[in-house]
Amino acid sequence: SLEMDLCYRSTISIYKSILEQFNPALENLVYLGNNYLRAFHALSKAAEVYFKAIEKIGEQALQSSTSHVLGEILMQMSDTQRLLSSDLEVVAQTFHVDLLQHMEKNTKMDVQFITESQKQYELEYQRRATNLDKCMAELWRMERVRDKNVREMKENVMRLRSEMQAFVSESQREAELEEKRRYRFLAEKHQMLYNTLLQFYSRV
Amino acid sequence: SLEMDLCYRSTISIYKSILEQFNPALENLVYLGNNYLRAFHALSKAAEVYFKAIEKIGEQALQSSTSHVLGEILMQMSDTQRLLSSDLEVVAQTFHVDLLQHMEKNTKMDVQFITESQKQYELEYQRRATNLDKCMAELWRMERVRDKNVREMKENVMRLRSEMQAFVSESQREAELEEKRRYRFLAEKHQMLYNTLLQFYSRV
Repeated sequence: SLEMDLCYRSTISIYKSILEQFNPALENLVYLGNNYLRAFHALSKAAEVYFKAIEKIGEQALQSSTSHVLGEILMQMSDTQRLLSSDLEVVAQTFHVDLLQHMEKNTKMDVQFITESQKQYELEYQRRATNLDKCMAELWRMERVRDKNVREMKENVMRLRSEMQAFVSESQREAELEEKRRYRFLAEKHQMLYNTLLQFYSRV
Repeated sequence: SLEMDLCYRSTISIYKSILEQFNPALENLVYLGNNYLRAFHALSKAAEVYFKAIEKIGEQALQSSTSHVLGEILMQMSDTQRLLSSDLEVVAQTFHVDLLQHMEKNTKMDVQFITESQKQYELEYQRRATNLDKCMAELWRMERVRDKNVREMKENVMRLRSEMQAFVSESQREAELEEKRRYRFLAEKHQMLYNTLLQFYSRV
């Protein structure tokens, strides 16, 4: 029927969208995230070198006859920066382990999982459709020869059709759930990272 | 006298320390600060690319049948990041204009200024020392011939010596002031930058 056909197309297109859009986008995100981390570590390093130079000037000021207190202030700034930097390092670590590594693992497993789900669905759909067609042909033959078992066969066709309708609806719902779970995973993981960042900023 | 000689050495060593320690250290700091800025801009760029990818996934989720709200959340995250990033850009701009460019300008002018101050001080010290020596020699000659103007000459020597004492003390104080002003400039400028950062964090 038209309704079942629409269900079938929609289910297949969800599997396709997870495989061809979502997972490649997630893979790309892992790649960009690793670039992001590298840039973060480069910035940490640059900050460390800069404030080590400030600290050295602070030490010189400490030894001068005129600027002892200013030397202490400069060295304090360097210490503060070191603390800030090690706090931010924790956020970066969260980003790396909880988000990037998790996304990378998921993407790799998901390609296989979704490919197999789709294949299984296509086979099962085909099997049920073939079975239904066969019964309908049988029914048509019976009607032509006025077979007395025609009512029984009609009920059989009705049952198969409604079972198949339930099957394609359920399959579509499952595919939709898989899609939603993936977007939710992405949103939740980023929300957690954002909360870690907020905690960090509120402690400054 | 020994006291004047100590004053002279101390004054010269302050000029030397500004020229040979402070200014090269400041030049190095400008160099490291520019590296720091470059790393910051690279991080900004990486963040922008990462959250543009998140935004794109958000748009796909918006178009899906299952994950409209999750798509909105992902796109909101991308917007928030853009705002944070443009706030941080202001801090980086402060760092660049108020601190790095100012330090660079100061260093360049200061080398000439301190070199000339030191040269002028050495010449003036030499002139006064020579004059004092001449008067002392004259006094010694007068004493040998029992000259009647010996008291007057003694007073002259006393006056020159005390003037020179005042001169070397004042010169040392000025050199110390120059040194202190430089350390204070460095500390104040970094304190201002830190305050800008704190304002930013407290707004998050």
